[in-house]
Amino acid sequence: MERLPGFRDFYPEPLPQPGSWSADARQYLFEQWRKVAGRYAFREYDGPPLEPLELFTTKSGEEIVGQIYNFKDKGERDVSLRPEMTPTLARMVAACERSYRKPLKWFAIPQLFRYERPGKGRLREHFQLNADIIGEAGPAADAELLALLIDTLRAFGLNEADFVIRLSSREAWRDFFGQRKGQPEKEYAFYQVIDKLEREEPAINEKKLAGLGFSLVEVMAFIQEGRPVADLKIVVDNLEARGLGAYVKVDYGVIRGLAYYTGTVFEAFDRKGEFRAIAGGGRYDNLVKLISGGKVDLPALGFGMGDVVLLELLKARGLLPKFEAKLDAFCLIEEEALRAPSLKLIQELRAAGLAVDYPLMAAKSDRQFKRAQELHANYTIKIESTSSDGISVRIKDLKTRAENLCGPADVGALLLAGRSNRVA
Amino acid sequence: MERLPGFRDFYPEPLPQPGSWSADARQYLFEQWRKVAGRYAFREYDGPPLEPLELFTTKSGEEIVGQIYNFKDKGERDVSLRPEMTPTLARMVAACERSYRKPLKWFAIPQLFRYERPGKGRLREHFQLNADIIGEAGPAADAELLALLIDTLRAFGLNEADFVIRLSSREAWRDFFGQRKGQPEKEYAFYQVIDKLEREEPAINEKKLAGLGFSLVEVMAFIQEGRPVADLKIVVDNLEARGLGAYVKVDYGVIRGLAYYTGTVFEAFDRKGEFRAIAGGGRYDNLVKLISGGKVDLPALGFGMGDVVLLELLKARGLLPKFEAKLDAFCLIEEEALRAPSLKLIQELRAAGLAVDYPLMAAKSDRQFKRAQELHANYTIKIESTSSDGISVRIKDLKTRAENLCGPADVGALLLAGRSNRVA
Repeated sequence: MERLPGFRDFYPEPLPQPGSWSADARQYLFEQWRKVAGRYAFREYDGPPLEPLELFTTKSGEEIVGQIYNFKDKGERDVSLRPEMTPTLARMVAACERSYRKPLKWFAIPQLFRYERPGKGRLREHFQLNADIIGEAGPAADAELLALLIDTLRAFGLNEADFVIRLSSREAWRDFFGQRKGQPEKEYAFYQVIDKLEREEPAINEKKLAGLGFSLVEVMAFIQEGRPVADLKIVVDNLEARGLGAYVKVDYGVIRGLAYYTGTVFEAFDRKGEFRAIAGGGRYDNLVKLISGGKVDLPALGFGMGDVVLLELLKARGLLPKFEAKLDAFCLIEEEALRAPSLKLIQELRAAGLAVDYPLMAAKSDRQFKRAQELHANYTIKIESTSSDGISVRIKDLKTRAENLCGPADVGALLLAGRSNRVA
Repeated sequence: MERLPGFRDFYPEPLPQPGSWSADARQYLFEQWRKVAGRYAFREYDGPPLEPLELFTTKSGEEIVGQIYNFKDKGERDVSLRPEMTPTLARMVAACERSYRKPLKWFAIPQLFRYERPGKGRLREHFQLNADIIGEAGPAADAELLALLIDTLRAFGLNEADFVIRLSSREAWRDFFGQRKGQPEKEYAFYQVIDKLEREEPAINEKKLAGLGFSLVEVMAFIQEGRPVADLKIVVDNLEARGLGAYVKVDYGVIRGLAYYTGTVFEAFDRKGEFRAIAGGGRYDNLVKLISGGKVDLPALGFGMGDVVLLELLKARGLLPKFEAKLDAFCLIEEEALRAPSLKLIQELRAAGLAVDYPLMAAKSDRQFKRAQELHANYTIKIESTSSDGISVRIKDLKTRAENLCGPADVGALLLAGRSNRVA
């Protein structure tokens, strides 16, 4: 029986085959995401992976609807696996915002779903770090969010030579559109063309823009001039005060596809241009109001960072650590008569927080030792029965091959010391 | 717009209203689950939340089918949100088992889904720790798995006065059924009656059993005698060697509802009998073979522990820690001229691993200080500009109210020292 197309199994390392997905690498991403979010005083939330379809279709623009993983449930409700987190966040905040001081700084690590045409390597689910600030309209919030984005990528060892955040503004584009007398009903279609500008042939862009009453020349001139609106300048200055100026550049070639963005928008790219966007986001000052039916009106902004592109980038730059079993000790049991006292020792060591494994069934000495090595144990331990003095334990360091003999009460301290030596 | 019935939103603490769910408590459960699994050398895996319906319906007995969250996807496939993890695990292991040494000790923390009748407090999703050992047929594996289950619950502060694991055996019941000439086609129906024995009226049990050719009296006598089969005795001895004997008792009143169990089965209950089962599991030696269409034949066993009952129990026993914002420092910015150097200082502290927050916009001193207290910051920090000597920082301990003045380079060390004082 096969898994569904576009879905992933996550295996423990070492991975069974090239191209399979690592549960350890995934956990590593999640841990780094949580760690940096905590430093920035962001708090975790989550919503259901399944939501009423309406939550997504009414607010997210045409583009998302065709690709959504929606269906009718057994209660005849139109529902959808979440394609993005922001509408859920807006719903949750609209329901409970009175209980929290503003601004909210919240993050989540949802699994998101799309029903795209399946193809080689094309996935129908991925995980995403979502970080949002809600309740602050000023550009200081934009800068704080961007700093979090930058420091999250830096936590993986990426630096300003590896990635850059292209900063843009829906406001600047709205001004451009209005000043040139664009028709309001074509505004969103216009943004969609800008969003695809770099991926499309010039002739096609020219034609599409003409249909909306614009020329490619004037659009390109606006992008190339790139004069930052007031808010963007404040954002850049703020990031420079933090020493993060080298990680951003104003670039109106970015506009973001989703309909609900209002102000600052941005995307993070690898400098070599080998990968799709690493992260993207922006201001969506009207969404909470829309989702709450006008009851709650709060400015907001956020970004999403997916696990797939980030993993590809970290792999390509050699920045993924080695993931392997991390075992403090493997307990050798060479005589079955010693199994009971060995189990007692193992129990005590685990209770002390140590990772310990052992052979479940009787096995030859050399096989047990090989297993200890495969599991990358720091030590082997082995009970040596002595009739008069009780029990003594032989400890062997698998790196240095140094051996030690001690009482069972001293094993834990020795293993812990060995662990910190290795970290240092 | 409302969330779907039976689904949960998870909010940061302090919670917006009684009865809402805590993202912090959920993360606390997950962290404890991962920590203890790591000590037992279990490795993490995960599969898709959506699987072909067939994976669940063909193997899991009639009971599960009516409650499953299945639907037809846009490609006309019969699919289902996973109601349990074991079939996915069996599928993954069958596909890749040759790459791993046996036994496999694997765990996962999936979200699981059921389409049950919605009702007050009845959920359609929950999270579950799933731990399994694959490739070892002997009872030593059963004992290792049960020890993990016991120590996982103990990691939350629960002890032998709080919970007990009722150990039973499908083998013992199969012997009972066979010796009394039960008809093979009624075997699974018989197990279902046993599974519901304690929740059903004696008269109804009597009637149901009579329909299958048994009397309630002989069934109750078998349960009360409770003579452990050989394997169960080995399991209990093994746990006693670890000092965990007080956490288990042989009790044939347990049999587990799912069709695929073969040997040892068990359920963990609170001793006071206030809650549903905290965890349950058992051997399923034929499932991998069934799922792989006969290609891979590996003995296996595992358990699941849900987040909902566990949380209820920990709450009732007062064992949940306080979840609140954990902030090393809140940076007061009382003059906007000091915002830029404050941002620089905040950036340095966060880079050093400290959790720091600050007012995004200009605000009155007392409001800033109040905010620092609400966020449970250990310290406030405040830059005091001195023209000649550069910058100095005032640090205030919010517990002792003690104040300190130091250079910006020394702030990090002071805050870190304060953190470890608090932990001790």
